[in-house]
Amino acid sequence: MAVDAKRAVAELKELRTLTADDNGAQRVAWTDTWLKAREWFASKLKELPVEHHYDAAGNRWITLQGDSPRALVLGSHLDSVPNGGWLDGALGMLAGLAIVRRIADEYKDRPPVTVRLVDFADEEGARFGRSLLGSSAFAGTSSMEADRGRTDKDGIRLEDALRRCGVEIDRFPQARQEQENAAAYLELHIEQGPVLESRGLPLAVVLGTKGVERHAITFFGQEAHSGSTPMNARHDALAATAKLALEIRAIAQKHADAVCTMGSVKTFPGIVTAVVGRCEATLDQRDLDAHVLATMFREAREASERFAQEEKCSVEWSRIWNIEPVPFHAELIRLCDETIRETAGESLRLPSGPLHDAAEVARAGIPTVMMFVQSLKGISHNKIEDTREEHLELAVAAFDRLASKAIVFIQSGEK
Amino acid sequence: MAVDAKRAVAELKELRTLTADDNGAQRVAWTDTWLKAREWFASKLKELPVEHHYDAAGNRWITLQGDSPRALVLGSHLDSVPNGGWLDGALGMLAGLAIVRRIADEYKDRPPVTVRLVDFADEEGARFGRSLLGSSAFAGTSSMEADRGRTDKDGIRLEDALRRCGVEIDRFPQARQEQENAAAYLELHIEQGPVLESRGLPLAVVLGTKGVERHAITFFGQEAHSGSTPMNARHDALAATAKLALEIRAIAQKHADAVCTMGSVKTFPGIVTAVVGRCEATLDQRDLDAHVLATMFREAREASERFAQEEKCSVEWSRIWNIEPVPFHAELIRLCDETIRETAGESLRLPSGPLHDAAEVARAGIPTVMMFVQSLKGISHNKIEDTREEHLELAVAAFDRLASKAIVFIQSGEK
Repeated sequence: MAVDAKRAVAELKELRTLTADDNGAQRVAWTDTWLKAREWFASKLKELPVEHHYDAAGNRWITLQGDSPRALVLGSHLDSVPNGGWLDGALGMLAGLAIVRRIADEYKDRPPVTVRLVDFADEEGARFGRSLLGSSAFAGTSSMEADRGRTDKDGIRLEDALRRCGVEIDRFPQARQEQENAAAYLELHIEQGPVLESRGLPLAVVLGTKGVERHAITFFGQEAHSGSTPMNARHDALAATAKLALEIRAIAQKHADAVCTMGSVKTFPGIVTAVVGRCEATLDQRDLDAHVLATMFREAREASERFAQEEKCSVEWSRIWNIEPVPFHAELIRLCDETIRETAGESLRLPSGPLHDAAEVARAGIPTVMMFVQSLKGISHNKIEDTREEHLELAVAAFDRLASKAIVFIQSGEK
Repeated sequence: MAVDAKRAVAELKELRTLTADDNGAQRVAWTDTWLKAREWFASKLKELPVEHHYDAAGNRWITLQGDSPRALVLGSHLDSVPNGGWLDGALGMLAGLAIVRRIADEYKDRPPVTVRLVDFADEEGARFGRSLLGSSAFAGTSSMEADRGRTDKDGIRLEDALRRCGVEIDRFPQARQEQENAAAYLELHIEQGPVLESRGLPLAVVLGTKGVERHAITFFGQEAHSGSTPMNARHDALAATAKLALEIRAIAQKHADAVCTMGSVKTFPGIVTAVVGRCEATLDQRDLDAHVLATMFREAREASERFAQEEKCSVEWSRIWNIEPVPFHAELIRLCDETIRETAGESLRLPSGPLHDAAEVARAGIPTVMMFVQSLKGISHNKIEDTREEHLELAVAAFDRLASKAIVFIQSGEK
């Protein structure tokens, strides 16, 4: 039996009509538009022989009971960033729904293993700055204590926004109960980068999510008059920052898939007539190999100290956030790779730079893999985010084929 | 007869007590504190045989009539930046006052040439962003039309703030009348830079004010996800900017006294997880030689285009402001140099990076020179702005000696 990929694409468009405005998707977690999207999704479940409920962290679990309690879990998220795209998260949810339909049909409502679909709450963290909120509660990887006091731009507390949606932060640890019997996790997502398009390929198998080192770096020099301070008498904090902005590229390029980004630079006093006395920059470094990541961090730090000295400045580092690399499951990677070759002819193995709920699921010890489909122009988190319709249909079909292989994988684990 | 330099320093301290708070001097032009400083200064004139009045641009002219109507003009300004220092501007005014006293005394109220002291209005442009306001009206170098609509941070219009102080913008052109009979202009100022201190010298003769090219430069790249965009697929507007920030230093260092400064960098979207899609920077270039200035401007512009191409970006330039170099008067430079050698043993010839009212006076064709006294740590526009007291006294004495030489210079011109 074939999955109805065209219906999945039609439903993606239906969701877009329901939840986007002229600036793009507005399904920000814990807002009315997000609740509307979830209600719309629930309406699609009525025709299916499934049970569904919200867990203690606001993740929705949809369960098609199988002969075995051991479960194949398909997952993604319905929330978006403000002014977001129509595919980020939503593609995985509608593909998962199409696959649950196909399996229910094929096995006359009783597949050999249990099949679950999860809509994780607040993957984006767009409103409160805490991404992977629902999936990290599921994985039990972080206490909510540090996040309890977060507020949105209107001063509304995270705790209060969640309560309004029926989610009590104190009950978060109970979300871990949903891990029971989870035997494999699959997630389909748009690439959100330019690699597949540049290679002319539709699909990739994701090797894992890169680890991230994220730091704030401040160079301290000496504010001085731009007219009266000779070049050799300056302590120019911008010059030290500029050297680092260029050096991080050399540091990244020693490694195949590594990336280093300086995304923000702020100059103080930041006026046309003053040498920069203080310069604040951010650094984001990512790689799938923890050793490479640690090396890049050390090299950037050492370079910053060298540049500070050269420019008669000082430098301070402050960690904003970090996460270790999360490699996916070797056998599931092999099956995904095989599936893509069978479906699209050629496969590509890619680490994911962006984080995904799959990373939290993998951290919980559940065998996990992701499949990427090509993004046009590599653009995401934007209303122009798009993927060719034939690629969307191909992705749903390939993901369905991977689900079948994963069921066999789970069954083989029971023997 | 000796000038009373100690009294000038004591009066500087008196002014500081009257118009500074814990954050520094607050004599911002067109504010109550500035008016208070001017009132205080007027009270010092009561004992002197001088006439004084405000011209049409709010500059105060104090005149000690001499045998000849041809006038030696000493000038400076009483206004400061917010949180400014105690010497910038004020030193020139109090030194000038001391010299007018000495000359009135010495010549029994009737010197051979007329001696005038001018307190220019709004040299700093701190409130409305229009510096040299009073002196440019005096020089007739710019129409006020472009500045009429300027507002301060509270939305108050320049025109209204001036009217409150009794100054009508429409009458500005009449300030040029004060040029009549002006035969030489002298200005004493703190260096506001580190050169004299680094050479261990108290005084310098100023060769002129450097010309300035001031531009806004914007690099346009492509905003992209920091995790999913490979290094070689980026159009990083910050990288192009960083290259330029470093290159302008090499461009400046080809010339002895030239300076190039990137004082402000702004990154967009300016978040830790995005490659910079747009980067706005400012460039300030200065030199006393118009040819050097033009060369530096061309080189920076060419470099920016090369870096834009290398980083797959584009670049746009927009002129913020420019002014040509203003060389001072050769004979007055010689006299100032001679005076410093006689007073302090060794002299130094320096161009001024910062602009001064003297530049506007020189542009009006009046023979002009400035004398600099050492600044501690090269810091100005700050409450820690300072100069050793012995250097202040030496400066007043040397400036007085220069005034005497300038009187002879004017007399010799009459022959």
